[in-house]
Amino acid sequence: MITIAEKFTALGTDHAPGQEVRQRGGEFAELTRGTKLQGGLVDFSHGDIDAHPPTPGSVEAWTEGYAIGGAQAYTEYRGLADIREGLAERIAAFTGAPLDAQREMIVTPGTQGALFLAMGATVTTGTKVAVIEPDYFANRKLAQFFGGEIVPVPLNYGGDMQLNGPDLERLEQAFQEGVEVLVFSTPNNPTGVVSARAAIERTAAMAAHHGVVVIVDQLYSRMLYGGEDYAHLRACRNVPENVITIMGPSKTESLSGFRLGVAFGTAELVDRMEKLQAIVSLRAAGYNQAALRTWFCEPQGWLTARIKAHQEIRDDLLGVFRRGGMATVTPQAGSYLYPQLPGMEIGLHDFVRLLREQAAVIVTPGTEFAPHDIDRIRLNFSQDHQAAVDAASRIVQLAKRYAS
Amino acid sequence: MITIAEKFTALGTDHAPGQEVRQRGGEFAELTRGTKLQGGLVDFSHGDIDAHPPTPGSVEAWTEGYAIGGAQAYTEYRGLADIREGLAERIAAFTGAPLDAQREMIVTPGTQGALFLAMGATVTTGTKVAVIEPDYFANRKLAQFFGGEIVPVPLNYGGDMQLNGPDLERLEQAFQEGVEVLVFSTPNNPTGVVSARAAIERTAAMAAHHGVVVIVDQLYSRMLYGGEDYAHLRACRNVPENVITIMGPSKTESLSGFRLGVAFGTAELVDRMEKLQAIVSLRAAGYNQAALRTWFCEPQGWLTARIKAHQEIRDDLLGVFRRGGMATVTPQAGSYLYPQLPGMEIGLHDFVRLLREQAAVIVTPGTEFAPHDIDRIRLNFSQDHQAAVDAASRIVQLAKRYAS
Repeated sequence: MITIAEKFTALGTDHAPGQEVRQRGGEFAELTRGTKLQGGLVDFSHGDIDAHPPTPGSVEAWTEGYAIGGAQAYTEYRGLADIREGLAERIAAFTGAPLDAQREMIVTPGTQGALFLAMGATVTTGTKVAVIEPDYFANRKLAQFFGGEIVPVPLNYGGDMQLNGPDLERLEQAFQEGVEVLVFSTPNNPTGVVSARAAIERTAAMAAHHGVVVIVDQLYSRMLYGGEDYAHLRACRNVPENVITIMGPSKTESLSGFRLGVAFGTAELVDRMEKLQAIVSLRAAGYNQAALRTWFCEPQGWLTARIKAHQEIRDDLLGVFRRGGMATVTPQAGSYLYPQLPGMEIGLHDFVRLLREQAAVIVTPGTEFAPHDIDRIRLNFSQDHQAAVDAASRIVQLAKRYAS
Repeated sequence: MITIAEKFTALGTDHAPGQEVRQRGGEFAELTRGTKLQGGLVDFSHGDIDAHPPTPGSVEAWTEGYAIGGAQAYTEYRGLADIREGLAERIAAFTGAPLDAQREMIVTPGTQGALFLAMGATVTTGTKVAVIEPDYFANRKLAQFFGGEIVPVPLNYGGDMQLNGPDLERLEQAFQEGVEVLVFSTPNNPTGVVSARAAIERTAAMAAHHGVVVIVDQLYSRMLYGGEDYAHLRACRNVPENVITIMGPSKTESLSGFRLGVAFGTAELVDRMEKLQAIVSLRAAGYNQAALRTWFCEPQGWLTARIKAHQEIRDDLLGVFRRGGMATVTPQAGSYLYPQLPGMEIGLHDFVRLLREQAAVIVTPGTEFAPHDIDRIRLNFSQDHQAAVDAASRIVQLAKRYAS
């Protein structure tokens, strides 16, 4: 049996986004080549909400929530009923399938909280969990923490866009081998690839057939670039009995400082998630929940403008990386880029650290998303446009210094 | 092996404080005696923060935090370093032992979050956990959720005040039988009893001797009534190697709507807790963390006035219950009362439900705190003074209707 010390070794967060400040400094003299590349610090490990500020009205909503007092501070564990009512309607419209606000939805502390509760409600010792590679780094860690056994399934990306999404043959094989839970993100984190409609329909049908629970992380599904088609698994022709969809206003809407997410789907699983929330953190912070009143209710044109700004950054960065010889798949949604590094004389983690110290650029190593992605870095390009372009150029320059 | 369905049955929250709204209504005709007792709804399941509002300056601190932007929204997982620095100094002064802000402290989503992380960092399948009875209802549920084996230890209360606290003989026995983790609250929830200094010193020494991890929930340790002595376990003569102390500004300070707590103690355990927080909810909501700048920094006289107001309510309610024949231990701290019901012709849960429907009073049944406490109810008396007195009278009246 795994000891608690081993359990926490597997939970290592040293390379996790946002934790760079806790990495020890030290001598890099033996690795350093050339002079420092000049430029202001750009932290691609998460979005820059000063460059792309929180949705209009969120502070006012918080202040109104605070003014309500006790009723807003002490909501049901699954979130204030009145807020869920309004939000469920808007999410039903967005995802294209009805949603019962009382039975099928829970407000959580961020989408991370939603993912934790969903995995905790479905994975226990020995549960086989299909995890996509690459995918959000916490999926694997959560499955392990709850005692699950990971069955990796590759992501199709970078080839025929009609095949984008989980590799369906490998997924079918995993289901046949006894997988009980599938967790995946679309748009995919870190690649920005959107699972093709056919892939989502097929995934849903296969999960329905095999009785697999599907946890689908759609965190970035609102920030869809021009002309892309997006399929919501919960609105498929053949929906599995147990589906939890996860979304939140932390990314596109820059409300990360409020720690808000929602999970919606199968009522029995939502009930379990609420029971778990009762011992994890009781509820999403009461006053913060009020900011959800602004979600999917933004001023006319706000979302379009936000998407346009991000698409322009995306296109410029793709240009920088591709001209610099770093192959990068075009993200169809969200604000992640997953460029491939050239062959180098140093390891990925050393390069990531040199980037920080020699080029004032913070990125997340690919190994956080797939153990074998030792030649990739992930960038959240929701940044100041010019600063991001400059920082991307520094990445290309530094990579050339170490190219083999 | 326990199935996931069984795991969640054990996590039932129907009777948990704050969840009353989710209990189904229904016919009580066969149980109802007499007419409804008139009075406005008083919800003793938690404090009334409209009657005892949040600490001055908390909203301003939040607003300043929001204005800081990204740096406040995306803190380290363990909380913003600068906030921890200031708070650690004040907590070290309060608890009487030094505290390293960087290595020994983590900011969490409420004290519930702190408790979850502390238990998750120390309890795994088969870990023997000493749980005090009665004590905070989540302790038992958390131990079970993480696969631990519960070893109940009685609380001494209501007798010689010098013996208040865990029953030391039973605790020693539990430690000898292989208990690895002790979790308990002082002031105790639900009784309001403060563990005597000698009991805390002895508990610490025993845990040190047996290598037991101690998780001590001191949520209510600031609201100490006149003349009471309070012992901080972390400042004992003989401190165990592994101690986590938990506090938060949700109760005395009425900041529950911000969902803030802190855990402080052994650096290795804090490291584990941060790793776990990374997959649970990333961090306490960034802007909310700013409210911690007001904690232990309240305006002169604020705490004294708050304690005085609560002591007056406490004394009046003790009078009502004792005159009504319901034995009630005098709480030495905090705002919980744990009166004993007279012998009745109906069960505890039916009485609790009748209280809600016939007397507009919400209380929490004793069984949430100890399985055998079938004749007790817990009240959080942090309420409007007059409303609380009226509601307590209704409890006495209704209990008399059903007395056997």
